[in-house]
Amino acid sequence: MRSLVVDAEWDPRPEYDVSDDERESRTAMNASQVWRDPELRVVDRERPTPADDEVLVRVRYAGICGSDVSMIETDEDGYVHYSAYLGLPNVTGHEFAGEIVETGDDTRLFEPGDLVTAEVTDYCGRCNTCRQGFHGHCENFEQIGFTIPGAFAEYVAVPEKLCWDVSALRETYETEDEALRAAATIEPSTITYHGLFVRADGIMPGDHHVYHGAGPIGLTGMNVSRAAGAGAVIAFEPSPERREIARDLGYEHVYNPIECDPVETVASITDGEGADVHVETAGAVTQTYPVIEDTLAEDATVVHISNAGADPDLALRKYQGNGAQLYGSEGHTGQRVYPRVIRLMAAGRLDNRSIITSTFDLADADDAVRQAAERVDGKVLIEV
Amino acid sequence: MRSLVVDAEWDPRPEYDVSDDERESRTAMNASQVWRDPELRVVDRERPTPADDEVLVRVRYAGICGSDVSMIETDEDGYVHYSAYLGLPNVTGHEFAGEIVETGDDTRLFEPGDLVTAEVTDYCGRCNTCRQGFHGHCENFEQIGFTIPGAFAEYVAVPEKLCWDVSALRETYETEDEALRAAATIEPSTITYHGLFVRADGIMPGDHHVYHGAGPIGLTGMNVSRAAGAGAVIAFEPSPERREIARDLGYEHVYNPIECDPVETVASITDGEGADVHVETAGAVTQTYPVIEDTLAEDATVVHISNAGADPDLALRKYQGNGAQLYGSEGHTGQRVYPRVIRLMAAGRLDNRSIITSTFDLADADDAVRQAAERVDGKVLIEV
Amino acid sequence: MRSLVVDAEWDPRPEYDVSDDERESRTAMNASQVWRDPELRVVDRERPTPADDEVLVRVRYAGICGSDVSMIETDEDGYVHYSAYLGLPNVTGHEFAGEIVETGDDTRLFEPGDLVTAEVTDYCGRCNTCRQGFHGHCENFEQIGFTIPGAFAEYVAVPEKLCWDVSALRETYETEDEALRAAATIEPSTITYHGLFVRADGIMPGDHHVYHGAGPIGLTGMNVSRAAGAGAVIAFEPSPERREIARDLGYEHVYNPIECDPVETVASITDGEGADVHVETAGAVTQTYPVIEDTLAEDATVVHISNAGADPDLALRKYQGNGAQLYGSEGHTGQRVYPRVIRLMAAGRLDNRSIITSTFDLADADDAVRQAAERVDGKVLIEV
Amino acid sequence: MRSLVVDAEWDPRPEYDVSDDERESRTAMNASQVWRDPELRVVDRERPTPADDEVLVRVRYAGICGSDVSMIETDEDGYVHYSAYLGLPNVTGHEFAGEIVETGDDTRLFEPGDLVTAEVTDYCGRCNTCRQGFHGHCENFEQIGFTIPGAFAEYVAVPEKLCWDVSALRETYETEDEALRAAATIEPSTITYHGLFVRADGIMPGDHHVYHGAGPIGLTGMNVSRAAGAGAVIAFEPSPERREIARDLGYEHVYNPIECDPVETVASITDGEGADVHVETAGAVTQTYPVIEDTLAEDATVVHISNAGADPDLALRKYQGNGAQLYGSEGHTGQRVYPRVIRLMAAGRLDNRSIITSTFDLADADDAVRQAAERVDGKVLIEV
Repeated sequence: MRSLVVDAEWDPRPEYDVSDDERESRTAMNASQVWRDPELRVVDRERPTPADDEVLVRVRYAGICGSDVSMIETDEDGYVHYSAYLGLPNVTGHEFAGEIVETGDDTRLFEPGDLVTAEVTDYCGRCNTCRQGFHGHCENFEQIGFTIPGAFAEYVAVPEKLCWDVSALRETYETEDEALRAAATIEPSTITYHGLFVRADGIMPGDHHVYHGAGPIGLTGMNVSRAAGAGAVIAFEPSPERREIARDLGYEHVYNPIECDPVETVASITDGEGADVHVETAGAVTQTYPVIEDTLAEDATVVHISNAGADPDLALRKYQGNGAQLYGSEGHTGQRVYPRVIRLMAAGRLDNRSIITSTFDLADADDAVRQAAERVDGKVLIEV
Repeated sequence: MRSLVVDAEWDPRPEYDVSDDERESRTAMNASQVWRDPELRVVDRERPTPADDEVLVRVRYAGICGSDVSMIETDEDGYVHYSAYLGLPNVTGHEFAGEIVETGDDTRLFEPGDLVTAEVTDYCGRCNTCRQGFHGHCENFEQIGFTIPGAFAEYVAVPEKLCWDVSALRETYETEDEALRAAATIEPSTITYHGLFVRADGIMPGDHHVYHGAGPIGLTGMNVSRAAGAGAVIAFEPSPERREIARDLGYEHVYNPIECDPVETVASITDGEGADVHVETAGAVTQTYPVIEDTLAEDATVVHISNAGADPDLALRKYQGNGAQLYGSEGHTGQRVYPRVIRLMAAGRLDNRSIITSTFDLADADDAVRQAAERVDGKVLIEV
Repeated sequence: MRSLVVDAEWDPRPEYDVSDDERESRTAMNASQVWRDPELRVVDRERPTPADDEVLVRVRYAGICGSDVSMIETDEDGYVHYSAYLGLPNVTGHEFAGEIVETGDDTRLFEPGDLVTAEVTDYCGRCNTCRQGFHGHCENFEQIGFTIPGAFAEYVAVPEKLCWDVSALRETYETEDEALRAAATIEPSTITYHGLFVRADGIMPGDHHVYHGAGPIGLTGMNVSRAAGAGAVIAFEPSPERREIARDLGYEHVYNPIECDPVETVASITDGEGADVHVETAGAVTQTYPVIEDTLAEDATVVHISNAGADPDLALRKYQGNGAQLYGSEGHTGQRVYPRVIRLMAAGRLDNRSIITSTFDLADADDAVRQAAERVDGKVLIEV
Repeated sequence: MRSLVVDAEWDPRPEYDVSDDERESRTAMNASQVWRDPELRVVDRERPTPADDEVLVRVRYAGICGSDVSMIETDEDGYVHYSAYLGLPNVTGHEFAGEIVETGDDTRLFEPGDLVTAEVTDYCGRCNTCRQGFHGHCENFEQIGFTIPGAFAEYVAVPEKLCWDVSALRETYETEDEALRAAATIEPSTITYHGLFVRADGIMPGDHHVYHGAGPIGLTGMNVSRAAGAGAVIAFEPSPERREIARDLGYEHVYNPIECDPVETVASITDGEGADVHVETAGAVTQTYPVIEDTLAEDATVVHISNAGADPDLALRKYQGNGAQLYGSEGHTGQRVYPRVIRLMAAGRLDNRSIITSTFDLADADDAVRQAAERVDGKVLIEV
């Protein structure tokens, strides 16, 4: 079957202490310290066979994530930017939707013909972290498209417990094709849903939300916030293309943080009360945190979602003076995150389709990743 | 000024133990034990003068609540149905919107020209209950339209701290008139907002909500649930007129509980998972609780809002087997309830206008109450 | 090895609809409809071999639970009282502590010599309920001592993921023997911990707690409440022996609900404010609920834990008037329940040892169960 | 009556923009920018007369807070260290207990003879912040001992709503004198109670707590944590005297952060899991935050309570990787904070008496403040 494979050279930096586990599995805990000179190729691979607890999914649409891009972007020494867990060569891609075509012998939840999307992190369910309820931080985790084969391919084998039925979207959208296109945007939407409604506590309908960064995570996040009853949804985003997408989605409060005074802007929109919810989806933390901390409403919540390139100064006094709190958040694993986001979409409250600004054939998947690297799209999809 | 006044005969039932406070203030803690042979008249009254901490509001629209109706409905002995705190004669009416025309000497929050609506319960802020944060259960409370003059009148004087600015609705709706019509439905909306998002804990966007009863509280509640990101919103309501209003609001899952099997219906809509949120707004608890308890999703939340005419049997085993919880809720006082509901309305997520099915002139306010007593309207408004 | 085995006759009541699954597995979903004329015998059985994901525990102490008793108590037709999931013949017992003596090939958490106790419910981790975080209501659950062999035996094989290390108790108590005796009371303690701190939300240190029923669950619960910072801990219990145990534990507010006026009693202790937390551990719901509902503090929480023999009338008005809530709770599975209870014990804040009022040899385990059936003990232990 | 008065010269720094309000009221929003060359004197003042809503308290014990000290400590230019709201000259002191000797005409909660302590912040109850439930951040606040006369005096007049009855402590301790000595430590205890149980959400009994700083707030906080069911309570404190006090209180995990490796220490005590609750009561944030961030357990909570002298770098990645959160907290106003702390003390779970290491007569109150400035005591009390 056709698939997009990323490979690179295993060349650990001298100062990086490679563990035995990493060496044996050819999987680096911090890819940016080990993988060098990446290559991206559409190749032919054998179609996977589902294990007993897996289902085989015929992929139909798969979205390109910032992490997919950062696996082929490199520093001056040729090391990839991606700085988390990565085993190569691998079929990448983890935001996808498709149809189940085969089920493992020990599966019970699905049947061929079901439309599904999937969580990314395969958790063991048995380690000390899992059994205390933190499956997203499983001590023995694998990740689809990072350490096990992903979805930029005609077929992907996925543990059944990670799959969620999206067949109900057939009724929400006109066609099955449209349903699957929309469903491919569920995974990025779950990132903010998890941050706002599983990690954080106490966000209320009618709260004003600010997004610092309106890339794919920020844009789907704004949609999640709106679906969940935000008051004003405000976005700061330097890219004019992305601001345009946000406006097309119906958001009126979309600004270039470089050209406006973001603190004044938030104050004006919120009648001087400040914003209740601050979502960092930009990564530009030395610029965003000073703004966040000067626009905290009483009892404000900051949700940190991006990969921060630095450690910003924290104005603790302002968190005290406003009774504010900050939550670190990553991923989307477990609990009711996927089914609830799917229901929002099925009920028509969350429609991400106009965020999709480019669609490529699987045959041109490498071009798709390069297009995403331009950082002007909402979401780049691969159609399989 | 013109106003609608309710009066009745002070004739305590022999078995009712009237306290000195009640006798002195001519205010009954349980109206149905004391007030007999009520009368409803549009009369001329002196325009109130705002106290130092009050503002004077020129009322523009005022909605009729079930409690207004129950003050003139009587049992066979002529005692009123309303069973809470009531002092007569009084100008009734507590769901209203209008314009501030005068401010007391010690007010700071508003200026003449501001459009406002108001909370109903005036709390002292100093009793043991208030100072622990439970202002809605203030030990020294008064209530607008129940024990102090209300809003079925040209003017009403209201403590400043109970008023909330709705001027932002001018931008949401086309005209100031339309803004004020909509604003008159804020008070009933806050009843469910308070139950779902202040009293209850853990309701998540994407949860399925069921309303047992789609009268004025149920209908505005369904709108609150939808604005706050409910998945499916399901309603059971025997009145065909009210079911029609619900359908016109865009709800597809609206049923007559007498003609369908409500348990089957919920099971079918929720793929057998049950509903996450159950709102009792019917009062018919011996009928609704068995349905609620057979349709509990895992971790389901029951919010009891209506005046229950009886004490239903509680199937405790089902709350255990589903990890479910039940919250008693009444009123809407304090916290961020009003500003958040107003923001939902200002953001266009909560539009109650089509719930308003009849509008009467203040001159015909008595007819308006009688119309509401028919229990076929969504909301009956008085235009002042 | 020596073990206590319960057996009975498979004789479904005519009106009970036995499923194919039940018939094949000789496991009744509702034991009281199927199992008749139970027998209790200490017999010799083969020592279990741990599966790959299991550990083998040399049992040292095992407590007798009300459910163990209800498997041998019968109605007039000879059917057992126990009304949940039960497969016979089986080694019963699920409250235990011991030492790991062997580990399965695929285990990672423990080594021989570790002291452990265990959760009761073996969950699949893969069904729709588990993967949404509700492992205690797993759709494919088994239960140690109910459907799979339990701990009234020299050895028990347990899935590793259910075991929790109690080795730290060696430092808290004088001897390993004492540590294991104490550790055998962890399981009942987790039942209330789960109800108060996982199911319920918002219980604050300094809240007043009332226990309705001071049997083994109530007594360990009172200790949990005290360890967790309750203000007053009040107990109502008809058995003089159990009241005496409660007093020996240092509780001053222990009453016979038949001889006192419980409503007055709570009012007097709480200065008329009512109790914040009400734990039903009696099962006598038609007697306890009227008391609970007349002693609700503002924002009070009711946690229902017992097997209720009936459905009490629910005075909804009182839950509204006091802003109160009710949670159904059962079991203790998953999350951080076990490790947190173990830490409370290790820190010296939770000492259940004086609740243990009788200890029997495994050879006399049948007598131990009969002693527990007298319902005068705190906790009856079997020493293995 | 005898009282301790702080005075200083009103000499705003040139760069500080004095508002009209500040100038008129001789009250600086930031004392350290305005008040210079402070003096501390025990003088005779007229006994206050309680206003209608106030009670008059005969002070019996009053504790010295770090803020009292910072009003007389100065920088090289002679400006005081205290950097918040301060009007001079004023009787300082806000941690106190005493007996009510007179009640204003419009009070209802107390009678002469009642023993009380009091909250510090007088809130208006009517501003936009108060009416949304955030009384601690009232827009029109005054503070006892900062902007209105305080408790280092024979008598203090206090708004009734800020007072809380401690008469129940008479039964907990042997004598009324002992009860009042203990009650004078309630105020500092409420600071951490508010941070851990009102501001933060989700702290569970059995969690491991770390205090960074064991001064008066840290020591009373450790007692609150223990009373509320912490697992291990760990403290890092450079002062050997304060470490000794902590050990005398029964804490075994008390370390000098300069001489040990705090990260290793926490790892060792928590079996490598990290600490669940981190309380910053030191102010040395550039030293403490790196330790906190390297010892975060999964789902850890950081509560920031101290006056931070700097803005530390925030290692956002660690909050994400551990699913951790940070809360800013200050004060203790409103909700159920005081009554719950009093109940913990009345129940014998919170005993701060051995934290009191020095007691001075009111006649020597100036020496008491100077003693506190040595920063070696647990708590310095003034006996009146």
